[in-house]
Amino acid sequence: MNLNDFLRDTRQQLENRLLASFDAPKSERLRTAMRYSLLNGGKRLRPALVRAAALAAGNDTQDWLIPAMALEMIHVYSLVHDDLPAMDNDDLRRGKATNHKEFDEATAILAGDALQTEAFAILAGADSLNDRQARQMIAQLSQAAGANGMVGGQMIDLQSEQKTLTLSQLEKLHALKTGALIQAALQLGVLCQSPLSGTLLSAFERYGRALGLAFQITDDILDVTASTEVLGKPQGSDLAADKATYVSLLGLPGAQQQAVQQHQLALGALAEVGMDAQTLLGQLATYVIQRDH
Amino acid sequence: MNLNDFLRDTRQQLENRLLASFDAPKSERLRTAMRYSLLNGGKRLRPALVRAAALAAGNDTQDWLIPAMALEMIHVYSLVHDDLPAMDNDDLRRGKATNHKEFDEATAILAGDALQTEAFAILAGADSLNDRQARQMIAQLSQAAGANGMVGGQMIDLQSEQKTLTLSQLEKLHALKTGALIQAALQLGVLCQSPLSGTLLSAFERYGRALGLAFQITDDILDVTASTEVLGKPQGSDLAADKATYVSLLGLPGAQQQAVQQHQLALGALAEVGMDAQTLLGQLATYVIQRDH
Repeated sequence: MNLNDFLRDTRQQLENRLLASFDAPKSERLRTAMRYSLLNGGKRLRPALVRAAALAAGNDTQDWLIPAMALEMIHVYSLVHDDLPAMDNDDLRRGKATNHKEFDEATAILAGDALQTEAFAILAGADSLNDRQARQMIAQLSQAAGANGMVGGQMIDLQSEQKTLTLSQLEKLHALKTGALIQAALQLGVLCQSPLSGTLLSAFERYGRALGLAFQITDDILDVTASTEVLGKPQGSDLAADKATYVSLLGLPGAQQQAVQQHQLALGALAEVGMDAQTLLGQLATYVIQRDH
Repeated sequence: MNLNDFLRDTRQQLENRLLASFDAPKSERLRTAMRYSLLNGGKRLRPALVRAAALAAGNDTQDWLIPAMALEMIHVYSLVHDDLPAMDNDDLRRGKATNHKEFDEATAILAGDALQTEAFAILAGADSLNDRQARQMIAQLSQAAGANGMVGGQMIDLQSEQKTLTLSQLEKLHALKTGALIQAALQLGVLCQSPLSGTLLSAFERYGRALGLAFQITDDILDVTASTEVLGKPQGSDLAADKATYVSLLGLPGAQQQAVQQHQLALGALAEVGMDAQTLLGQLATYVIQRDH
């Protein structure tokens, strides 16, 4: 399967499963708000990473689906909360009204809260996972999502506004804010397969770290080079918010050079375990720096 | 141990463990905000229920501590988010500034988010739990906390403001909003002990349902009978927000009668498994309707 087919098939399978969930809700409004953001057409990069990592570990079953759904719920909840007026105060996300604009602030807070809970609920309740797998996946995902991962990064990000960061501080921030969840995607994929490959886990940790940075640097680049229409949110919004970015620190050519470097590091980590740039994970690394939104 | 000693000892053990957690935080501000609400002097009723249920199931070890901490983190995160301006907009909680008043809204949102994550992280990471226990506790807690439990109840509560509810609608609302977590406390306690006692689980489900209602009815009564000083929040705040309560539906004497009825139902469920009103769970049921705040 080529990369585009793989991404499309992953999106379709994931969204079919997401559509089928949340039956018999106690609150129709809450469910509608959760689904609104969950099915709001993301690239589904993290689910694709879960699946590609599981495949690389030798698991070609549907085992990737549950951890991919859980991870995507965590990712989407974080977007819903990040968009809130008290946080980034964004009106648009992927070209559509953000959750609190479509519904209201209270609903967006609760929908985000419930999406986070549901992520752990589906891992704990999945028939396809044994007790050890379910527990390890929950451990990895909660570490990546919590105070010493994604949420910690978001807090540091908010405190960093209108401050000048060094490159090293910016890297630390993004290692938490976006990197932790990307690394978790790879770990969850490897955890689909038993026995666990320690070699793969450690190579994927390096691959994930580089991929996460490449992803963030590319986001920063797209913020100044892509149109509002293609981005689905206002061009230059980081600039407007006076945020430290790779572009503001290194200039556009410097940022582009950094993205290429991280791309090379990611491919290098794959090479250590005998994988080349043409594998799905290699192609995903290339996709991450070449995407247009 | 009498009830007061039991409650005090439970509080102390729980708070000692909470104080020792969150080492080496990535964001000092986030940790400070999480600890601020987590150590803000609650009654710790839910942890006491976990411990009393574990004891009743025959487990007198410290196994109750991890699930009690997890449950309290879920409870506290929900309070932090409920107090936000977009939700109940409360300035005071237990006589102190609410989280967003002490810090700011963004910090309160993130502290709540991270507390929820941490609840699942400590269950997944606890050495004292085997894989099956950890997974079952996470399954129970996430079911109780999510869209078909606590958060669903909170959503229904917000949609019910300025509406007249029937008694049955009010009961459904509270079964989700506060009842689900109280029931989870008992389930988590029973799950500390293996093999699992199905008889105990089903009796505690009935006990928990009645206890949760007794708790909520008493809250509604205290809102009109207790002073602002004793409550730690403004007296009559439900009334001011035009909320449907047991007092607004049934009047004060009617609400008091309902609390007594639920108390009797709780004791009756205990009697089915050979426990009397003098056991810790019996005393806790009495404490719930006789407390002054």
